[in-house]
Amino acid sequence: MTQSAPVELLVCTTCRRGLPVEDDAARPGALLHAALAEAALPEGVHLRPVECLSNCDNGCSIVLRGGPSRWTYVYANLNEAHDVDTIVEGTTRYHATADGLVPWRERPVHFRKNCVARIPPIGA
Amino acid sequence: MTQSAPVELLVCTTCRRGLPVEDDAARPGALLHAALAEAALPEGVHLRPVECLSNCDNGCSIVLRGGPSRWTYVYANLNEAHDVDTIVEGTTRYHATADGLVPWRERPVHFRKNCVARIPPIGA
Repeated sequence: MTQSAPVELLVCTTCRRGLPVEDDAARPGALLHAALAEAALPEGVHLRPVECLSNCDNGCSIVLRGGPSRWTYVYANLNEAHDVDTIVEGTTRYHATADGLVPWRERPVHFRKNCVARIPPIGA
Repeated sequence: MTQSAPVELLVCTTCRRGLPVEDDAARPGALLHAALAEAALPEGVHLRPVECLSNCDNGCSIVLRGGPSRWTYVYANLNEAHDVDTIVEGTTRYHATADGLVPWRERPVHFRKNCVARIPPIGA
């Protein structure tokens, strides 16, 4: 396999995860982003905060994308306290592919059950 | 405004819209794609079939994207019989923007209520 394009892990940092959040309190999405910034993501994965991924009813949400040859995936219902390891695992497997297509059985169970959408590659 | 990039309107053609579909019958997603192929989409919008956008619980689904400077949007719960005009209107407004951000009040009501996700531009 040739060298793959870098991967972006986008995290919705404005997500309230359906909770009432005081104006000056950190939001669940921001906490998820902060936790991922401390996690062991593979080299070549760029963590990026995004203001609202418009999946507010099923947050917290992330997007995985990576260059013109990979499918893009949107995953939902993630919890900043419980799901960091799942995101790291799923991102690592995604990063290891050239086309973004991780075999179904190799995807974390949460990813299998909470895929909101996938979008085809733009094409090289 | 400078000339914008072309827009892609991706339609999930394998969508069953939750219905039992006989193997040899056209699927709702394929019918939606066929209806859009006959519709008055603006010049510069490319209609493209996709096999499964992985939004199966809330189909039919479409994606709007358009070059490195526009946000990408995923819309759900579309009906091949009722929503073609809505898709044409929303696509036309999206196509008219440089960044993909149509003001909220200018979006079709169905788009406002059935946005599954939005994904930021890759950047020029």
